[in-house]
Amino acid sequence: MQQPIPNSQFLIPYCLHLADTTIILSQRNSEWCGHGPILEQDIAITNISLDLLGQSRNFYQYAAELISQKNGNIVTEDSLAYLREATEFKNLLLAELPRGDWGNTILRQYLFSEFQFILFEQLKNHADTQLAAIAAKGIKETTYHIRWSKEWVIRLGDGTAESHDRIKAALSMLWAYTDELFIPAEYEVNLGIDFDILKKIWLEKVMAVFEEATLSIPENIVMHTGGKNGLHTSELELILAEMQQLQRTYPGAEW
Amino acid sequence: MQQPIPNSQFLIPYCLHLADTTIILSQRNSEWCGHGPILEQDIAITNISLDLLGQSRNFYQYAAELISQKNGNIVTEDSLAYLREATEFKNLLLAELPRGDWGNTILRQYLFSEFQFILFEQLKNHADTQLAAIAAKGIKETTYHIRWSKEWVIRLGDGTAESHDRIKAALSMLWAYTDELFIPAEYEVNLGIDFDILKKIWLEKVMAVFEEATLSIPENIVMHTGGKNGLHTSELELILAEMQQLQRTYPGAEW
Repeated sequence: MQQPIPNSQFLIPYCLHLADTTIILSQRNSEWCGHGPILEQDIAITNISLDLLGQSRNFYQYAAELISQKNGNIVTEDSLAYLREATEFKNLLLAELPRGDWGNTILRQYLFSEFQFILFEQLKNHADTQLAAIAAKGIKETTYHIRWSKEWVIRLGDGTAESHDRIKAALSMLWAYTDELFIPAEYEVNLGIDFDILKKIWLEKVMAVFEEATLSIPENIVMHTGGKNGLHTSELELILAEMQQLQRTYPGAEW
Repeated sequence: MQQPIPNSQFLIPYCLHLADTTIILSQRNSEWCGHGPILEQDIAITNISLDLLGQSRNFYQYAAELISQKNGNIVTEDSLAYLREATEFKNLLLAELPRGDWGNTILRQYLFSEFQFILFEQLKNHADTQLAAIAAKGIKETTYHIRWSKEWVIRLGDGTAESHDRIKAALSMLWAYTDELFIPAEYEVNLGIDFDILKKIWLEKVMAVFEEATLSIPENIVMHTGGKNGLHTSELELILAEMQQLQRTYPGAEW
């Protein structure tokens, strides 16, 4: 399917949505850096954190370019990341939830990466060539993120009674934030993304992995949405307070 | 110079010293991950943090192997990193100092990386082939760390009046912790490392960079040592409290 070249009125918030989601998830994962309990896995999750930070940088740069073209305001990747308010952030709620235990961290990563891969597969053919290029670049990283997190989901789900119970509990909590991935925000409606196909492929993949992991999709879950439109949990304020502290204290400083 | 194959009585604490120094410095640098003010540099310093974490892992693994051979106690890289007390840690004091401002962080990294490179150049020919292999593997990373941090030192030192003053202040503080790099601890005496040569080459390199950065070595500095022998500042307790919290709360858990 050939998408139309979108108006920057939609493309700007969409790029911010993608950038915000990856930077916030990167923050959550980076909380594990060297904080144990397994050095090898600390390194793996921190590498994923860095990949996501790199992706967010690409999306912020493109958003900054589009905003400057449109309004003449000079904004930069750094001002977009470090000087916007929580209500301006458009990240998925899934990204801002606390890291929780190890099972929770890897299950969240798995659910997100599987989604991001299918999305990037669509976006890499997008009529907006810059968006397409950023997505194409991310696919290789995301492939690795899926492989790594999928193995962990299976290992924990199909592991000991305790590991099974804990990842099952994580799934009950996280599942409530998965609908938001597939409900287009206003700025997503005219971007030529096929959310129905996205959801269909995602569900098939996730269910196949859950079967191997002896997990099943929780029932009767009340879904939460809002992040894409700036409605967040109180967790986001806390993340931003820490993440933006330096830039807000010394605006424009390189210290 | 051909070094003798050292007794594991010396090699074990030496590997712990190398591992502790790199894991603690990694922790300090990881505090910047996504915390601004410049996304590009956050990514660079987090990459360095990851390299150092990887190096510490290699040294902990080797130490664990030697300890298990010697005592029959089963220790692992993870128990060495996450279950030892501050007084058992043998890291350089330089590594545990607070990250300070950006100038402080990159100057510390520069001073350390320049030292680590020369050390690894000696160790890569060490009679203990496993130590030699770890050092050889680290040289490429360290080369990049030097290049990156050196450019920053020059940029800030030879930059604005404010950047010059701030990195000069960082230098006055950090210099007091550089003697320790070259004063062998008891376990380092018989390892065949030439500390005099190390110091001579390091000083030459550092002074050349300082000249470009319009910095000079501070005078009349009272030197602090002790880290290599388990005598630390109160900062280390704080780092370990955070770093080890998970493993100490749930010993042996993979959560």
